Amino acid sequence: MKIVFSQDHKFQDGKSELIDGQIQPPVEKPARAEQILSAVTEARIGEVLAPAPVDRALLQTVHTPAYLDFLETAWDEWVAAHGDWDALPLDWPARTFTHRVPEAIDGKMGYYSFDAGTPITSGTWRAVTASASVAATGATLVADGERAVFSLCRPPGHHAAADVYGGYCFINNAAVAVEALRARGFSRPAIIDVDYHHGNGTQAIFYGRGDVFFASIHADPRQEFPYFLGYADETGDGAGEGANANFPLRWGTGWKSGYEEALEAALDRIAAYGPDVLVVSLGADTYHEDPISQFTLDTDDFPRIGEHLKRAGLPTLFVMEGGYAIDALGRNVANVLSGFEGA
Amino acid sequence: MKIVFSQDHKFQDGKSELIDGQIQPPVEKPARAEQILSAVTEARIGEVLAPAPVDRALLQTVHTPAYLDFLETAWDEWVAAHGDWDALPLDWPARTFTHRVPEAIDGKMGYYSFDAGTPITSGTWRAVTASASVAATGATLVADGERAVFSLCRPPGHHAAADVYGGYCFINNAAVAVEALRARGFSRPAIIDVDYHHGNGTQAIFYGRGDVFFASIHADPRQEFPYFLGYADETGDGAGEGANANFPLRWGTGWKSGYEEALEAALDRIAAYGPDVLVVSLGADTYHEDPISQFTLDTDDFPRIGEHLKRAGLPTLFVMEGGYAIDALGRNVANVLSGFEGA
Ligand SMILES: [Zn+2]
Ligand SMILES: [Zn+2]
Repeated sequence: MKIVFSQDHKFQDGKSELIDGQIQPPVEKPARAEQILSAVTEARIGEVLAPAPVDRALLQTVHTPAYLDFLETAWDEWVAAHGDWDALPLDWPARTFTHRVPEAIDGKMGYYSFDAGTPITSGTWRAVTASASVAATGATLVADGERAVFSLCRPPGHHAAADVYGGYCFINNAAVAVEALRARGFSRPAIIDVDYHHGNGTQAIFYGRGDVFFASIHADPRQEFPYFLGYADETGDGAGEGANANFPLRWGTGWKSGYEEALEAALDRIAAYGPDVLVVSLGADTYHEDPISQFTLDTDDFPRIGEHLKRAGLPTLFVMEGGYAIDALGRNVANVLSGFEGA
Repeated sequence: MKIVFSQDHKFQDGKSELIDGQIQPPVEKPARAEQILSAVTEARIGEVLAPAPVDRALLQTVHTPAYLDFLETAWDEWVAAHGDWDALPLDWPARTFTHRVPEAIDGKMGYYSFDAGTPITSGTWRAVTASASVAATGATLVADGERAVFSLCRPPGHHAAADVYGGYCFINNAAVAVEALRARGFSRPAIIDVDYHHGNGTQAIFYGRGDVFFASIHADPRQEFPYFLGYADETGDGAGEGANANFPLRWGTGWKSGYEEALEAALDRIAAYGPDVLVVSLGADTYHEDPISQFTLDTDDFPRIGEHLKRAGLPTLFVMEGGYAIDALGRNVANVLSGFEGA
């Protein structure tokens, strides 16, 4: 299985995320990608390739031009207004507010985000466009005939909507990959998001469309971030009705206590949709030792995830999302891929 | 002029607000109320009285029962989930999200707030109900015949909407006062908000109603917190059309370079409304040395604010809002009140 990877992920190296009421060093750190690269190399998953630069036009099939312009210039505006430290927003257009783009950088950051855990730094634009290029290049390889490819993206993307960043995500890599595949003739892509957290961004991007199926298995939003999307009754809108499937699970869920069953149900829904390609938003934060998550999967369960995905019988692009238990992360991710390949 | 004040304000004594990308000690601190009390006492503005406890039924004419229940129990839930430090939210239901109340405390905090600058602490419920009681008791005194009263409220309230807290505000004291006055027979109250920041909460609470007039003079939302309300074209909705008047002003505005003119225009609108009582949301952060604000009023301009307000010729209740330049705060506030009395 070919692997796409860019060293430029390291340009997202923040110092600050707001979590549990405190500013902490971000858990979404460069070491994650390094650990995964190391593990997939050691497990001989496949050849590692650098990405081709991504086209802004492709990014604009997912994100608004105004949002991309904002991301590209935010750091410079922040430094001019405040100084040379991680940029976090000040307030958000919540209930009772209106949605107009302010002039001030703090205002723009609040307009375009949903948390204070996703720092913009001097290297963010470089890192997130590199991450998107990793996803796009993976899509190109699948379109060129590869049966399965792993796009080792960092930063992740599934929490990013068309004009909203947060949850450590800025550009929705999985959505970029889907649009790249569609441009190459795949007319019925399906996305399955196995990250511990709901793929709210990906859901929102495709919610009104019937030509892309989205399924997510994740922690119940009543208990878990991002809290405000991911319910089972979100089944799509308009032309997208029936093309969105959420499988929320309670804290403490393990492989044999709900996860495998939900994964099978999601894959049944996908099979019924009849897709021509599968994009997997691969998060490993379902692991029992993940520092910010509450599922209980073991390292031995990750190959099983891969085996189940293989049974879909589709050309498959894995896009890396979350997973923060650094010591086991590489092995867990490699296990999914080797489980897929060996099935 | 009688003054209402409660020592219980001191129970809001947070350690953390997220501002300029960092956690800082809150600028909305107990010393503010102490300085103001000291200055109005020294200036012999009037007798200082303790408030009568506020009725929850009165609070529920402004805030939803669910929101009040949340505020009352939030600290205990936070300690159970995290620990004994200031409670700040994790993420907010921004664009593309839905508005359903989660079970988890972090989720509820995001649901009910719009920033991470407004810590919930062990004493918050006690302090904010005391602050509301100060406003309600001020309203009672006006209803009983006092021509002018100063409700020295802390924490402030004008950023709080029916079920949203933020901007250091939890319960909208000015709105509580208005409802208390209405219950005593004042059928056409007007509110003028002279705080540097837009009174988004007060606007939202009365936006659809024609029986309460709201005017605010504040920093342009395109430049300044709260960014997402406060535009001049927000003139009311439905029955409230024409009963909302915003006067946004650019950074750098001073008394003679826009502020006096806006104040006069706001008072003209209020006069045209023909109110029977005036509630003044009194913020002193229009002062040139305010640490978080960008207007340029001098200490000598504050008596002029009072004089202009006196010309409205109405029973008047002053409700304390913001103002963070501790050294001058007391004098500036006392100046408004003495300027009012002396005019
Ligand atoms: Zn995740
Ligand atoms: Zn203010």
